[in-house]
Amino acid sequence: MNEVYQDAASQLAVAVQEARAGLAEGGIPIGAALFGPDGELLGRGRNRRVQDDDPSLHAETVAFRAAGRMRGYGRTTMVTTLSPCWYCSGLVKQFGIGSLVIGEAATFHGGHDWLAEQGVAVTVLDDAACVAMMGAFVTARPELWFEDIGE
Amino acid sequence: MNEVYQDAASQLAVAVQEARAGLAEGGIPIGAALFGPDGELLGRGRNRRVQDDDPSLHAETVAFRAAGRMRGYGRTTMVTTLSPCWYCSGLVKQFGIGSLVIGEAATFHGGHDWLAEQGVAVTVLDDAACVAMMGAFVTARPELWFEDIGE
Repeated sequence: MNEVYQDAASQLAVAVQEARAGLAEGGIPIGAALFGPDGELLGRGRNRRVQDDDPSLHAETVAFRAAGRMRGYGRTTMVTTLSPCWYCSGLVKQFGIGSLVIGEAATFHGGHDWLAEQGVAVTVLDDAACVAMMGAFVTARPELWFEDIGE
Repeated sequence: MNEVYQDAASQLAVAVQEARAGLAEGGIPIGAALFGPDGELLGRGRNRRVQDDDPSLHAETVAFRAAGRMRGYGRTTMVTTLSPCWYCSGLVKQFGIGSLVIGEAATFHGGHDWLAEQGVAVTVLDDAACVAMMGAFVTARPELWFEDIGE
């Protein structure tokens, strides 16, 4: 892929596109993308629990796998529409992903403080469109949302 | 699936079968299985980084996805040949998997102490066959092993 997105807002827009595509498919509207050191798009994806009937396919995992096998994630950035759950926070920690950009952490507060304490560069954008999208979904489909986070 | 494995040793044997199958395929020999409250096998799998060229397919994730969509993991047990990395430890935490049985934690020490602190019932079996299998692999294929844990 040769697409380059250099600032956090345009990187988040990729994740939001994924989330909206997931919503249109009847899925959970969470999107993510992994970017390289110069903003090159390495992988993108969306939550696919509903679409693939697969509980392991959180958006961050889908973006990570889409990037393929790599060595050294220290200079990569994971961008996600929503604060990552512990599963996806563990992904960031284990693979040493250096930076994390989050659309919003109001609807759900996952493991991003824990990652920041361990040296990950965490940015929470407090994006109103992300809050509105996820908030509306949780209200409309609480059973799907709580299934997705194991509650 | 109707297979039932009631004790930790027989549950570990399922994970070891998976790990050995992975080794025979040229993959990383880590296996896992998820069991229900009465020892019923819900899902099993092995690391598939090499086989599927997919960095997200750690054994625990493969076993978790094989179990399919569920509500409530509190009475399930994740059994794995090796101490779970942070990604897989995050999986256990997020979905509230109640128990974790580990073949060995000598070759690699992941997040199981962290999980125990949070109330997961953790058993480390110190299984000599698991230590020998993984130790031999790390010696033989260090580049694959370190790729798998993001180092």
